Amino acid sequence: MREKKVVESKTTMTEMIMPNDTNPLGNLMGGNLLRWMDIVGGVCAGKHCEAHVVTASVDHVSFQNPIHLGDVITLEATVTRAFNTSLEVFVEVFAANVKGGNNRRCNDAYFTFVAVHDDTRKPIKVPKLLALTREEEKLYESALRRRELRLILSGRLKPAEATEIKTYFAEQ
Amino acid sequence: MREKKVVESKTTMTEMIMPNDTNPLGNLMGGNLLRWMDIVGGVCAGKHCEAHVVTASVDHVSFQNPIHLGDVITLEATVTRAFNTSLEVFVEVFAANVKGGNNRRCNDAYFTFVAVHDDTRKPIKVPKLLALTREEEKLYESALRRRELRLILSGRLKPAEATEIKTYFAEQ
Amino acid sequence: MREKKVVESKTTMTEMIMPNDTNPLGNLMGGNLLRWMDIVGGVCAGKHCEAHVVTASVDHVSFQNPIHLGDVITLEATVTRAFNTSLEVFVEVFAANVKGGNNRRCNDAYFTFVAVHDDTRKPIKVPKLLALTREEEKLYESALRRRELRLILSGRLKPAEATEIKTYFAEQ
Amino acid sequence: MREKKVVESKTTMTEMIMPNDTNPLGNLMGGNLLRWMDIVGGVCAGKHCEAHVVTASVDHVSFQNPIHLGDVITLEATVTRAFNTSLEVFVEVFAANVKGGNNRRCNDAYFTFVAVHDDTRKPIKVPKLLALTREEEKLYESALRRRELRLILSGRLKPAEATEIKTYFAEQ
Amino acid sequence: MREKKVVESKTTMTEMIMPNDTNPLGNLMGGNLLRWMDIVGGVCAGKHCEAHVVTASVDHVSFQNPIHLGDVITLEATVTRAFNTSLEVFVEVFAANVKGGNNRRCNDAYFTFVAVHDDTRKPIKVPKLLALTREEEKLYESALRRRELRLILSGRLKPAEATEIKTYFAEQ
Amino acid sequence: MREKKVVESKTTMTEMIMPNDTNPLGNLMGGNLLRWMDIVGGVCAGKHCEAHVVTASVDHVSFQNPIHLGDVITLEATVTRAFNTSLEVFVEVFAANVKGGNNRRCNDAYFTFVAVHDDTRKPIKVPKLLALTREEEKLYESALRRRELRLILSGRLKPAEATEIKTYFAEQ
Repeated sequence: MREKKVVESKTTMTEMIMPNDTNPLGNLMGGNLLRWMDIVGGVCAGKHCEAHVVTASVDHVSFQNPIHLGDVITLEATVTRAFNTSLEVFVEVFAANVKGGNNRRCNDAYFTFVAVHDDTRKPIKVPKLLALTREEEKLYESALRRRELRLILSGRLKPAEATEIKTYFAEQ
Repeated sequence: MREKKVVESKTTMTEMIMPNDTNPLGNLMGGNLLRWMDIVGGVCAGKHCEAHVVTASVDHVSFQNPIHLGDVITLEATVTRAFNTSLEVFVEVFAANVKGGNNRRCNDAYFTFVAVHDDTRKPIKVPKLLALTREEEKLYESALRRRELRLILSGRLKPAEATEIKTYFAEQ
Repeated sequence: MREKKVVESKTTMTEMIMPNDTNPLGNLMGGNLLRWMDIVGGVCAGKHCEAHVVTASVDHVSFQNPIHLGDVITLEATVTRAFNTSLEVFVEVFAANVKGGNNRRCNDAYFTFVAVHDDTRKPIKVPKLLALTREEEKLYESALRRRELRLILSGRLKPAEATEIKTYFAEQ
Repeated sequence: MREKKVVESKTTMTEMIMPNDTNPLGNLMGGNLLRWMDIVGGVCAGKHCEAHVVTASVDHVSFQNPIHLGDVITLEATVTRAFNTSLEVFVEVFAANVKGGNNRRCNDAYFTFVAVHDDTRKPIKVPKLLALTREEEKLYESALRRRELRLILSGRLKPAEATEIKTYFAEQ
Repeated sequence: MREKKVVESKTTMTEMIMPNDTNPLGNLMGGNLLRWMDIVGGVCAGKHCEAHVVTASVDHVSFQNPIHLGDVITLEATVTRAFNTSLEVFVEVFAANVKGGNNRRCNDAYFTFVAVHDDTRKPIKVPKLLALTREEEKLYESALRRRELRLILSGRLKPAEATEIKTYFAEQ
Repeated sequence: MREKKVVESKTTMTEMIMPNDTNPLGNLMGGNLLRWMDIVGGVCAGKHCEAHVVTASVDHVSFQNPIHLGDVITLEATVTRAFNTSLEVFVEVFAANVKGGNNRRCNDAYFTFVAVHDDTRKPIKVPKLLALTREEEKLYESALRRRELRLILSGRLKPAEATEIKTYFAEQ
């Protein structure tokens, strides 16, 4: 199974914020953004794995800058690290008004996806990721720590066994 | 400002899984579930605050049991604790097939919402929560620890200052 | 086939009124409300019958109080009586603004559903309803009269044979 | 205010049945049909009144022939009679498969709409209807009886005062 | 295979312009209009061919009069000429406000569809068109010239061989 | 007004083909593709002009390769030439299956947009385009010919005056 570069599966999505996407204050509802982030992340993961993928989890997401009716958002998804049958995808969201002005970074989140077999729908092995740039390496390294936190939060790892996180806390 | 009970804002939502909600494998896409969880959570938070609310964050969510085309899901949202201008809402998801069979618990997540002023859209104070049952008290207590983790993850609190979490890790 | 209680299939649905649900005056269009009432009624009927159901009819519905953009509506569906292969479901609609204020009862309607076999799609027998409270009994009793009216209106019963309705008219 | 002919406001709508319009059995859900019937009826009523209209009620509707995924339906709406500030619209539904075959009449329903003032949203007078053909006259005559039934069903008329219906029952 | 008249497949569609159909200026987006034109054209073509059809091309479309939120549009589709396995459909768009006023012609376009076999999805022969009125004959005649232009524009005909268009240009 | 490069407004959009986007044969309907092409073209034009834009026209589009349910499509829009108050945008469509395989070029089209003033909605001047690469220059040059054809097809230019097209035909 061939190692793959980040650039091979990088996926960009553009959406215009329509009336039905907004709350009564005229701002994009958080849940609609999460829905688009999941779609672009899933397309990116599917390309990397050359397989059907299902969403396994999404890490903590916070919403700072409101996105308004009529704004145009760009979502960029890149694989950060592949594990055995799962992989982590980083999704970033940028917004601008319809004239291309007021460009701003709005959000990001880490999604994990699991590749599954077409028929049995059982998890299958995924290709390794080849981190090339410094930025890619940084995301690759920190992926282990995020994975430990996920395992703790979903009750599959005891905090005492989270060696990566313990080290991280100790170093702060 | 009157303290409020959990039951005063508890909100239940029912959705049928339609073809456009599913991936090519015929399962509900994770992002669509997140979108509904955000809506039911927001309605619940709006009732508690008697104000417009905006989503501030969603904590780690994991997806275990697939939900299928034609299934009926029930989402239940309850406030767990109110802070100064924000509040935490717990959302649980249950699924059953269209005949009401194969009932199962699928998911849960903690959302935080901020109450905002109608015109200025600045944060406003929210009513305190009155936890009555043992279950409500448990969620009320643990809310502080989840809040610290949120502040760390969004870079607004140094891990070293996270006293609740440190204690939690020490006790494990 | 076990008799079933009302509470076993009671279904609650919550919807936010979005821009595309409203007419140019900013009010929920009647047809959209009917669509949601049919969905919640069908889910309720499916649970009672533990079978696929199809809508057979909806009785006269009138729309009094306008529901506005941004309002939150709650729909509650309960079985009132089961016949041979069909059952009657009562759907009530309540609305409130996004802050939980201006709570009001908006609408109700009686839907009938027919339970059908998964493969043949022929009607199948449905479980009887056990009316327990006084309110449930009242709806259970009056269901016969509504059924006669339905049969007359769809041309399957001659008015002269509508004994329940004749009695009702005579008593007024 | 000029009397108007039926043909001046007759409205035809065509819809293809898409996956999200159907239940798990692959048939159009009743509520979706009601939604389209309300829209075509409202457009027809708006043309006749040259005003904004709101749905006041829909009479008993029954669903006999299932409509399938991929079918094409045609909805035809005509005014049957105008009252003071309201009017009755008759909506008929026809279905055919995508090849134009298996043409069949599926449904009909009587909707009532109220014309409202743009700003005050108070009911306003509507133009009278000029029934020309025998078919139009028949619908025009029977409209009074349907109106009485509506008033009884919504509790605004005592059955004892329903002279049109009493006569109708007596004549059967 | 029986020749068919224009009137046998003429199709009328009515749509209300909803918030999600409009751009931030409150006008119908061109692409949404094209989508509806394609649907009504496809239904018309399917009826003429009594077969599944797929869109082969749409000719140059220009958008002159803006269509506003709340407007009601009527789309009319008629077959202009049938070729071997394809046919040309003319789609016209009319708009009016919700009160039926400000009636205006907005748009038109020529679509071509190909009839395909249910299983093999290979092109199949389509029935000839019988042009009866002067208007129908005019559209029938000019269809050949539009077809040549289409073939040139899609690179399947050399301009030098476009005899119909050459004549047309020479005559101007 | 600063001249702008192609790259400054290039826009990429990714869409998954969902059930409601497809016809009964399971293929993307042409009209849905046109709708997405118009959106991505409009976002691209808005960025170049830093203004609201409205669709003025779309040139001949043909549909060769079917796109299937579950496929992922990528749309790329680039400005080819700016005129006085309008500009031409080239939109290309690529499709792949959900696993990133069967990559293929599906479609392209030329859209023209007009930049309009926020309040008056009158056309306003647009920035010139700076064509840099050979490919960009080729599209820039041929834009004049396509513009003449558009003017002829919409009846605003007599074929005899179409100097660019006449030369093109003569050279073939």
